[in-house]
Amino acid sequence: MRIVVTNCNTTQEMTEEIVRGARAAADPGTAVTGLTPIWGPESAEGWLDSHLSAAAVIDLLRTYDGPPYDAVVMAGFGEHGREGVRELVDVPVVDITEAAAHLACLLGRRYGVVTTLERSCGQIEDSLELAGVGRNCAAVVGTGLSVLDMGDAARTEAAFLTAAERACRAGAEVLVLGCAGMTGLQRVVGEKLGLPVVDGVGAAVKLAESLVTLGLTTSRAGSFAKPVPKRRVWGRPGDRGGERG
Amino acid sequence: MRIVVTNCNTTQEMTEEIVRGARAAADPGTAVTGLTPIWGPESAEGWLDSHLSAAAVIDLLRTYDGPPYDAVVMAGFGEHGREGVRELVDVPVVDITEAAAHLACLLGRRYGVVTTLERSCGQIEDSLELAGVGRNCAAVVGTGLSVLDMGDAARTEAAFLTAAERACRAGAEVLVLGCAGMTGLQRVVGEKLGLPVVDGVGAAVKLAESLVTLGLTTSRAGSFAKPVPKRRVWGRPGDRGGERG
Amino acid sequence: MRIVVTNCNTTQEMTEEIVRGARAAADPGTAVTGLTPIWGPESAEGWLDSHLSAAAVIDLLRTYDGPPYDAVVMAGFGEHGREGVRELVDVPVVDITEAAAHLACLLGRRYGVVTTLERSCGQIEDSLELAGVGRNCAAVVGTGLSVLDMGDAARTEAAFLTAAERACRAGAEVLVLGCAGMTGLQRVVGEKLGLPVVDGVGAAVKLAESLVTLGLTTSRAGSFAKPVPKRRVWGRPGDRGGERG
Amino acid sequence: MRIVVTNCNTTQEMTEEIVRGARAAADPGTAVTGLTPIWGPESAEGWLDSHLSAAAVIDLLRTYDGPPYDAVVMAGFGEHGREGVRELVDVPVVDITEAAAHLACLLGRRYGVVTTLERSCGQIEDSLELAGVGRNCAAVVGTGLSVLDMGDAARTEAAFLTAAERACRAGAEVLVLGCAGMTGLQRVVGEKLGLPVVDGVGAAVKLAESLVTLGLTTSRAGSFAKPVPKRRVWGRPGDRGGERG
Amino acid sequence: MRIVVTNCNTTQEMTEEIVRGARAAADPGTAVTGLTPIWGPESAEGWLDSHLSAAAVIDLLRTYDGPPYDAVVMAGFGEHGREGVRELVDVPVVDITEAAAHLACLLGRRYGVVTTLERSCGQIEDSLELAGVGRNCAAVVGTGLSVLDMGDAARTEAAFLTAAERACRAGAEVLVLGCAGMTGLQRVVGEKLGLPVVDGVGAAVKLAESLVTLGLTTSRAGSFAKPVPKRRVWGRPGDRGGERG
Amino acid sequence: MRIVVTNCNTTQEMTEEIVRGARAAADPGTAVTGLTPIWGPESAEGWLDSHLSAAAVIDLLRTYDGPPYDAVVMAGFGEHGREGVRELVDVPVVDITEAAAHLACLLGRRYGVVTTLERSCGQIEDSLELAGVGRNCAAVVGTGLSVLDMGDAARTEAAFLTAAERACRAGAEVLVLGCAGMTGLQRVVGEKLGLPVVDGVGAAVKLAESLVTLGLTTSRAGSFAKPVPKRRVWGRPGDRGGERG
Repeated sequence: MRIVVTNCNTTQEMTEEIVRGARAAADPGTAVTGLTPIWGPESAEGWLDSHLSAAAVIDLLRTYDGPPYDAVVMAGFGEHGREGVRELVDVPVVDITEAAAHLACLLGRRYGVVTTLERSCGQIEDSLELAGVGRNCAAVVGTGLSVLDMGDAARTEAAFLTAAERACRAGAEVLVLGCAGMTGLQRVVGEKLGLPVVDGVGAAVKLAESLVTLGLTTSRAGSFAKPVPKRRVWGRPGDRGGERG
Repeated sequence: MRIVVTNCNTTQEMTEEIVRGARAAADPGTAVTGLTPIWGPESAEGWLDSHLSAAAVIDLLRTYDGPPYDAVVMAGFGEHGREGVRELVDVPVVDITEAAAHLACLLGRRYGVVTTLERSCGQIEDSLELAGVGRNCAAVVGTGLSVLDMGDAARTEAAFLTAAERACRAGAEVLVLGCAGMTGLQRVVGEKLGLPVVDGVGAAVKLAESLVTLGLTTSRAGSFAKPVPKRRVWGRPGDRGGERG
Repeated sequence: MRIVVTNCNTTQEMTEEIVRGARAAADPGTAVTGLTPIWGPESAEGWLDSHLSAAAVIDLLRTYDGPPYDAVVMAGFGEHGREGVRELVDVPVVDITEAAAHLACLLGRRYGVVTTLERSCGQIEDSLELAGVGRNCAAVVGTGLSVLDMGDAARTEAAFLTAAERACRAGAEVLVLGCAGMTGLQRVVGEKLGLPVVDGVGAAVKLAESLVTLGLTTSRAGSFAKPVPKRRVWGRPGDRGGERG
Repeated sequence: MRIVVTNCNTTQEMTEEIVRGARAAADPGTAVTGLTPIWGPESAEGWLDSHLSAAAVIDLLRTYDGPPYDAVVMAGFGEHGREGVRELVDVPVVDITEAAAHLACLLGRRYGVVTTLERSCGQIEDSLELAGVGRNCAAVVGTGLSVLDMGDAARTEAAFLTAAERACRAGAEVLVLGCAGMTGLQRVVGEKLGLPVVDGVGAAVKLAESLVTLGLTTSRAGSFAKPVPKRRVWGRPGDRGGERG
Repeated sequence: MRIVVTNCNTTQEMTEEIVRGARAAADPGTAVTGLTPIWGPESAEGWLDSHLSAAAVIDLLRTYDGPPYDAVVMAGFGEHGREGVRELVDVPVVDITEAAAHLACLLGRRYGVVTTLERSCGQIEDSLELAGVGRNCAAVVGTGLSVLDMGDAARTEAAFLTAAERACRAGAEVLVLGCAGMTGLQRVVGEKLGLPVVDGVGAAVKLAESLVTLGLTTSRAGSFAKPVPKRRVWGRPGDRGGERG
Repeated sequence: MRIVVTNCNTTQEMTEEIVRGARAAADPGTAVTGLTPIWGPESAEGWLDSHLSAAAVIDLLRTYDGPPYDAVVMAGFGEHGREGVRELVDVPVVDITEAAAHLACLLGRRYGVVTTLERSCGQIEDSLELAGVGRNCAAVVGTGLSVLDMGDAARTEAAFLTAAERACRAGAEVLVLGCAGMTGLQRVVGEKLGLPVVDGVGAAVKLAESLVTLGLTTSRAGSFAKPVPKRRVWGRPGDRGGERG
């Protein structure tokens, strides 16, 4: 089967890293294609970025003209857009935020999320709540690092371990990597902490494969009906360059 | 003071209607300026439209170069984007969804929302929940009419009354007009039902004026910090026309 | 328009202070009349006082024979009685507890309340919960000061700042002055904390004006129907003096 | 031991009926004394009555000068005041609303309450929620009868059975008599419905006896500390006659 | 009346201790019979033990052939099985976990539970939640002692006091002994803490007596219908000895 | 990899049916072994059966001496025991109840469960709640058929469709087969209803495979620590035959 993985931002290197994580989790028979939005934020941190990212990712899939795919994995931890994508495409859609939480619920009575900046914590809590998996979340804790800081592995690891302790004191028995850019960290921090650590990208790939294999896709009854045909303009006409801050 | 009211869609006529509602509610000393996104959906119905609308409205305010304003009213019932706008601007931001609910809570023990299509109900419930005012919402009920059907006043009124009955049976003691396009209907249906009916546009204008008068604006601590400067591209470069369906 | 503001206790000086706060927030065209109960507690701290206060304030409005008014603001933070007053009068009723919370929800993702004695915290939590705005309350924190200690401004400010820190650590991004006697403090502590601080008296005045302008008043359907005519005796027949605890 | 049972209204006949119900449930060694407020409403229906009743019942106990007692049972279903009484007296206080719910939770997975007028339902829901036993309440249903209509046993029984069906359809497996004036009805409707029916008066007597026997009384830590000594006036000075609505 | 008290484990000494606690709480006219499972764990700590215990206790009552009894008290704090026993027997069934919480709710606004090992805390939280009394539970705190460590009274008391402080900091105004083996401790720690401390065994005996006196028993409507006759085998055929973990 | 699937009852035919369903969902490289308890109920309906089943299934795995396995799937919809099994084994454990709900959450905003007898509904609700996935469950609806009635496919299908309608009216957009004995029905009812229908057995197999592939297993921190070594007896010594109802 083919899974497309959408990055939530325009940074190509991050798409590549996410794809590596996705492939490491995927079945041998699963082809993983990474897609990078051609517009949107270079990293998604906070609500403004998240709203921009949501529209850009939907547009990315709307205009996609590559080979057919069987499922979408949305790789933006805590970012908006999954419901819109569910309306748009006919295949299952799995967001890494909810995916990590679904698996974490199976591994302990309470889980915690360790993410980047403190400002993202609220957004993640909201995302988990609406996905229906907020009840057993003990805490969402920030490391103080930005998405683009994730490149420094040692620093990220150290910050993760410190934040993880706070999550554990709040009752977490399982941890979730709260940023697609942390993918790959799960093993080393899991060993140091003696706890299962769930990476959302891997989790979402497995859930997407599961849904495809079971022949299941998004319900069209009620919330996620097909979008009504109408006039829609996707972005500032003639905008060429974007803005800096 | 000056309040800008953002329509959530590109339909100029709807902006005008919203502005009429806003002016009817505003203090004599309040200037109301309506803003119509230059991109986005022509009406917002469902999550895909809502995500597109959120980015377009943020972009609208980001590129606004008119006279300074004191507050933003976001006129898209149940639509996304309020948190991103709160990050962006330095003045208070009030979304008509939450505004209507805040006032409704003051008028009865439980309120109900009557909206357009059934598919919008879930989105509205989520929006109320995250705004912190979901607890006393007895029901969100659809009329089966689309946003653009709102033009036919008699049909809208009849559909509203039918849906209102369902909301009342669920415990609503106060009703909320669940679409910016219903603005103006509150008096007539209120009289027929013998119930207070809250229009979100008017409610948001009064709440925005209240915050401005009290010298209050969005907290920068935590969730709604200023967006970090970074590269962001607002829409498909070179897109000129939009799509149909 | 005319708004009557009811103090929750019999201390005339506090009524005057509340009226000053109310007038500072009110529109130029709004006349504010302060009313002091002729019976009840001299300050309301704890449930017993609150229950006594509720009856005394209802009686105050029941026997009021001044000029007609357009709205009632109830100035007793966390005190009982708002539902009974809603049954009694035909105009909108806004309690400062709920009013502060409604506005605070518009200014940040989570708010906190800083109040007087620890013993009042539970009462305030209950009041917010029933008003439908408890969800986004991160904490209600006491300063250890009694209502009548509020007179010492420096001490109150210092105690407020200490308690505010606890609320912020619990996630509050906006603060609420949890006592009518704190009115006036919002600006100075807001500046020191770099956070919006909402005063319930001002908030309630603006919400009351908003409801009046919009032509909205309490629903008579369901909970807040007019009281049934029956024999009611308002207080101990012949009681002249009160007690000293 | 001696238990005082406070009626929530001034109707002496209702006190007598409540005392009969209390004695039927009490241990042989328990003396039951009924107390009728000398002020307050003649029946408590709605919030205004409830707030008035709360103050009158607290005053009743504050000025009580009979023989010492070991516990207080407050017989007003859904009425305010229990927290204030807990502050006032040094013995355990049990309200019939919470008492019925506590026992009902032991008898089935969900319980329902059948009460008098629809307008009382919200008040009862609030009371159960704050008492900590709202979770397993499936429904609070009105019969449409007023408190003083309870005298007509056949009519009350018929109305109860109709309302009970609605509660059962909502999931109730156990029923609660939602008015002190229904005491005595539990056996006959229980048999007709084939369900356990809990009377709050009997339930409260047993819980009060239980607490006394176990040597337990209200905590003074936190919420229910002794009222601070201060000037309090209990009712309109010189009021002699009361009002007719 | 006769109450049977079932221990949740096979340790006869613990049954005796529980029976002593039960008798100390029971009315003079109540006969208390202790029953010890002939299979199951020697102490119940954690879910595996709890599931084993539940089946063993149900089997104990299923095969009981002593004199008839009027109620069952299940003495296993946080252990499973109460719902199954409610299906099995025709008399009221009270579990000490829920019993303690029901009484604690009457004594303060929030209660806390102090139990044995940290691993039991989650189980107790779940048990309280499903019993419908989780809302007002401020915290469940472990002492780090195992059930069988309870024998050392001084150590248990010291550990209890330390854990109690944590519960109080979380808002508890009343404490609950979170293990049947702590029965008897309530008076001494209550005095040291200046707080009411509820023992579940005593609480359950009083609630059971209350239900019997009121003629109430488990509803057969819905959840707790009689078990359908079918083939059931109660334990490993021929197992004679058990295992050592 | 090897997955063992435990039936919750002693009926060998049902194990075979479950294994067929599991194999249909499993990856080609996954070996599925069905295990039937040698004691317990012949079908699990209600709490007593569920408690008995939990102990029997734990004992089944405790005494298992076949080839090593990589994960456990527990096939008893709404039955107890998953937490105890998580303590016991070192591999991931997935219960079909939670598994179905986790996948259903990915397919629509609200899901509904259609199960056997009405008496099982409450148990299933509790199981979903504790698993952390109750929030988005719109309804659990019974068909009135017992587990052993599932053999009659046409009748089951008809009853399922009727019950499904009730779930949809309550807001379900996705359905879950609420009994392991319904496995196989998902395709036909899904087509008739035009909705995704999730079978818990297939869902659990995919989730178990996912966890194994990702190298994740149950956390030993906190709730699901290894059982402490102690004396445990697994069932009535010498019991040979079981009972008939």
